[in-house]
Amino acid sequence: MRESAAIARALEEFERLPGIGPKSAQRIVFWLLNNEESAAHRLADAIREVKDLVHFCPRCFNYAEDELCAQCSNTDRDTSVICVVEEPRDIGSIERTGRFKGLYHVLGGVISPMDGIGPDELHIRELIGRLVDGSVQEVLVATNSNVEGETTAIYLSRIIKPLGVRVTRLASGIPVGSDLEFADEVTLARAIEGRLDL
Amino acid sequence: MRESAAIARALEEFERLPGIGPKSAQRIVFWLLNNEESAAHRLADAIREVKDLVHFCPRCFNYAEDELCAQCSNTDRDTSVICVVEEPRDIGSIERTGRFKGLYHVLGGVISPMDGIGPDELHIRELIGRLVDGSVQEVLVATNSNVEGETTAIYLSRIIKPLGVRVTRLASGIPVGSDLEFADEVTLARAIEGRLDL
Repeated sequence: MRESAAIARALEEFERLPGIGPKSAQRIVFWLLNNEESAAHRLADAIREVKDLVHFCPRCFNYAEDELCAQCSNTDRDTSVICVVEEPRDIGSIERTGRFKGLYHVLGGVISPMDGIGPDELHIRELIGRLVDGSVQEVLVATNSNVEGETTAIYLSRIIKPLGVRVTRLASGIPVGSDLEFADEVTLARAIEGRLDL
Repeated sequence: MRESAAIARALEEFERLPGIGPKSAQRIVFWLLNNEESAAHRLADAIREVKDLVHFCPRCFNYAEDELCAQCSNTDRDTSVICVVEEPRDIGSIERTGRFKGLYHVLGGVISPMDGIGPDELHIRELIGRLVDGSVQEVLVATNSNVEGETTAIYLSRIIKPLGVRVTRLASGIPVGSDLEFADEVTLARAIEGRLDL
């Protein structure tokens, strides 16, 4: 008599996901209905599993399946440098470069007075806690290159430098492979300020 | 030591879905990880449920949760007309117009020699079976307005008309709210051929 309640519910749950509108949700649900049963069950299990098994690393607040995250539990990493990022996904971006071998610390956001997020809402106290034993010599701040990211970087440098720890920031400049004519003047100004000897 | 296997598996399963690439999958999985546990569990349950509860209506091949689908089990529908569609999702499009009160029949595709799909691969035999008792007076063919859809419509009209059943087709023409200048010549020609008295 009625439309399928199960389809309606699946559509509703998919539409909640970021970037999924009604059309995408419908396409996915019909795809699941047309595919073999195992495809839907595998997806459902993967969702349950990722939520049940993954938690925050108590040291750096990255996602972790074991007690500590992949980087914190890796004894081959350089423990003298900590890269500070906004979100766990940023760790993946940096890891893919293969150029950073230190540890990480996830803030869980950035200082944003507009959104009511101050230093106390971020994992800054825990970061300071990791610096007190003197083993960390450098904190590389890899927050995003926008107002909030810069503000957070400056805040961190002000409270960390007094502890005798070097604070660095990712370089700003022209994206590799990009033309000068497409660079905005702020980026170009940064690229000039940060020019390197060849 | 390793990256989270659960995250990798969830990413992989989401990337399998239509319209979901690596970036969207990552956005969704991180959204699930950042949200309360119930959101992920509700989604996982909805996926299992839609696949476990929904099957094909044995009469019209629409999706159904009960024995028959919503339309076939509705005794208020006009049983003298059957609208033939390619896929179950097309039924939703037609239902939303509120202009069709008859029954449906889902072909499960269209005749497409290029893809090796002939009449025997579609639910055409079952459609003919629904016409033999003489209660159906009209078959409205609502396949898509492309080569395969038109071919299928012509094929159906050739085999159904000899049974003494009227075969109709959705009108082609200018989309409502659209400008003439954007209509292609084939659509415009169809709109002229199908012109109505005012």
